[in-house]
Amino acid sequence: MKASAKAHTNIALIKYWGKRDESLILPMNNSLSLTLDGFYTTTTVDFRESLTEDSFYLNDQPVSGVEYERVTSFLDLIRKYAGKPNLFAEVHSTNYVPTAAGFASSASGFAALATAAAKSLGLKVSDEELSILTRQGSGSACRSIYGGFVEWEKGDRSDGSDSYAIQVAPANHWDIRVAAVVLSSSAKKVLSREGMKRTVDTSAYYSSWVESIPDDLSNIKEGIKNRDFAKVGEIAEANCLRMHATTLAANPPFTYWRDTTLAVMQTVQELRENGVSAYFTIDAGPNVKVLYLPENEETIQSTLREIPGVDDVIASRAGQGVSYI
Amino acid sequence: MKASAKAHTNIALIKYWGKRDESLILPMNNSLSLTLDGFYTTTTVDFRESLTEDSFYLNDQPVSGVEYERVTSFLDLIRKYAGKPNLFAEVHSTNYVPTAAGFASSASGFAALATAAAKSLGLKVSDEELSILTRQGSGSACRSIYGGFVEWEKGDRSDGSDSYAIQVAPANHWDIRVAAVVLSSSAKKVLSREGMKRTVDTSAYYSSWVESIPDDLSNIKEGIKNRDFAKVGEIAEANCLRMHATTLAANPPFTYWRDTTLAVMQTVQELRENGVSAYFTIDAGPNVKVLYLPENEETIQSTLREIPGVDDVIASRAGQGVSYI
Repeated sequence: MKASAKAHTNIALIKYWGKRDESLILPMNNSLSLTLDGFYTTTTVDFRESLTEDSFYLNDQPVSGVEYERVTSFLDLIRKYAGKPNLFAEVHSTNYVPTAAGFASSASGFAALATAAAKSLGLKVSDEELSILTRQGSGSACRSIYGGFVEWEKGDRSDGSDSYAIQVAPANHWDIRVAAVVLSSSAKKVLSREGMKRTVDTSAYYSSWVESIPDDLSNIKEGIKNRDFAKVGEIAEANCLRMHATTLAANPPFTYWRDTTLAVMQTVQELRENGVSAYFTIDAGPNVKVLYLPENEETIQSTLREIPGVDDVIASRAGQGVSYI
Repeated sequence: MKASAKAHTNIALIKYWGKRDESLILPMNNSLSLTLDGFYTTTTVDFRESLTEDSFYLNDQPVSGVEYERVTSFLDLIRKYAGKPNLFAEVHSTNYVPTAAGFASSASGFAALATAAAKSLGLKVSDEELSILTRQGSGSACRSIYGGFVEWEKGDRSDGSDSYAIQVAPANHWDIRVAAVVLSSSAKKVLSREGMKRTVDTSAYYSSWVESIPDDLSNIKEGIKNRDFAKVGEIAEANCLRMHATTLAANPPFTYWRDTTLAVMQTVQELRENGVSAYFTIDAGPNVKVLYLPENEETIQSTLREIPGVDDVIASRAGQGVSYI
């Protein structure tokens, strides 16, 4: 049966930073994200008896190599889970996540893939089971199963059966916005996937990072519950800085930041000094995301666009979880 | 007796970062510096029976307020030490440390002041005693008593009697150079003195910073002994990044860096990728100092000057300790 699903990307306010199991993708710490309306992937999966291998098309182009392997490995997992290890699929995905905005398209990509694949295989899975399956394709994707504010429980079991996402508050709980600041293409290369592992393995500050998470989480959840923007923003910004600080203490040390990254960070802090409530967060890359309230949308957009080295600012609001289309 | 002394500033390769006693200026960790030939202070101190209060002239201008208080408090300490608590002094200082270069002039300033004041009072003090006295004026100044590579032993005693600097290697042991990169005056304000205390009091990473120092110290001393530039540079750069990472985990978090700071850091890393051995270090401010070997002087100078936001590059070599003039 052919099935199609749509999933949105998400931005972590409490960062997923470090795996305790590389193969099952089990994290060292809980994380918390906001699913974003503006950036998503649609995927159609068609498991058919007639196929002798998987095929994967991204934005109408056939994909091979590493990206194909990642998709087919995930399909292996889900077809075994369905008890149909020899059934292959044709997969068509379209990404509505501009690469320049610096979101990992793997979050929306694997959430949509898991949802469509499960339906195509006739699986009846709970959101919890779907989140566990999705997690094994891409860690942060397990949060995109849900809309709004979502926590990924790290779990304690070695088989990962208690490592899945749960919804903290739906998208309509609170209208907060996220601006993705697109840096000009003079991008310098930075480490990405290796960075997390090197930090876990060598950073003098990594264990203190992990120890700092429970406080952040209980505080930010209280802030979300009470719609306390300054509280949520302060915790998210501090958590992001504490995460990036771990890379500076790795061996050898490194940073994902570029000069423009710092210019955007400083502009956001100046906006606050001028009474405009805004906070930043940064994933494992140079791009900055800015959190703000709807009434400041114009100020935020125009101020961020003025920064030398900034090409574009793309706004988004809270988005829904996965859906069939 | 009128006495004059000259002292050079120093740049820490292993950072002094955090006090265990604010009043006696006792550090949490050992630090290690290179005394710099290019930046210095000359000071004349004249303790005279006829004076009823201290006076302090900096670059020929009379000084009052906080800066005056800091000098006169230090003179209190040294005249009591000499058993002449009611003897006052006229002090004339000239700073050859350009403010824009981002060196704390207090290091050369208090080293010159202590040296001249001790002589003016007729004190016979060892370098160790002079370093202990100087430390109580400005922590990092206690390293400027010596030339070349200098370690400040943090000491363990609560009275500070074992917290002083010692020479690791003299200036002529090894000709390594330091370029002070002067950023354009669009400087944004950053915390400075408060920053250290806030970090000690609140940073989630501070205790790990302190724990990381002994390894850095023993490794860098081995590198200095063997004139192993890559080793010394790597340790200094990593130590600087680890220090700055502590501020990102303070509550609230902060950074001394600006966009141009990051641009200089990245340029230095690119120089290395292109085979030019150079490393950076950054004190509690936005300015960057670049370590290099004499054969790369022209490349370093011209490359750093090309960075947008950089106004000047001032080179220095290893300098001598305090001297009478």
